[in-house]
Amino acid sequence: MAGTLTTVSFVPQVHKAWRSRRCDDLSLGMLLTFGLGVVLWLIYGLWLHAAPIIVANAVTLALILVLVAFKLRFVGH
Amino acid sequence: MAGTLTTVSFVPQVHKAWRSRRCDDLSLGMLLTFGLGVVLWLIYGLWLHAAPIIVANAVTLALILVLVAFKLRFVGH
Repeated sequence: MAGTLTTVSFVPQVHKAWRSRRCDDLSLGMLLTFGLGVVLWLIYGLWLHAAPIIVANAVTLALILVLVAFKLRFVGH
Repeated sequence: MAGTLTTVSFVPQVHKAWRSRRCDDLSLGMLLTFGLGVVLWLIYGLWLHAAPIIVANAVTLALILVLVAFKLRFVGH
């Protein structure tokens, strides 16, 4: 449940960024550092064959990559 | 290491928000949902007496609370 919440939490952020076409106040350093952490969690989950860790971190990684794409695309908007 | 990165990632976000005095593009829903998830992780860590989970999530929670405070304080700036 804790993992679900921390994963799902990026949904409103993606939604907000998509609607407003703005990510200026999001830190790229935060997104990249967090994304790297999530990649390591994903590797850990794959290594353990732990489906909940794999699914939660794969979804989070996808949402983070969307935010990074928005961040690069909407720059200065 | 994965946990350290996902915790530390909020440091550049707090730094950016503090310098720019802007959090408009941060989703309050993201902060509150993520914060609730971190609280549950913290409870889980306390229940397991797992110091790494406790420390990582206590630090993350503190950083999230700072961002929520900035979000409420810098609104419309």
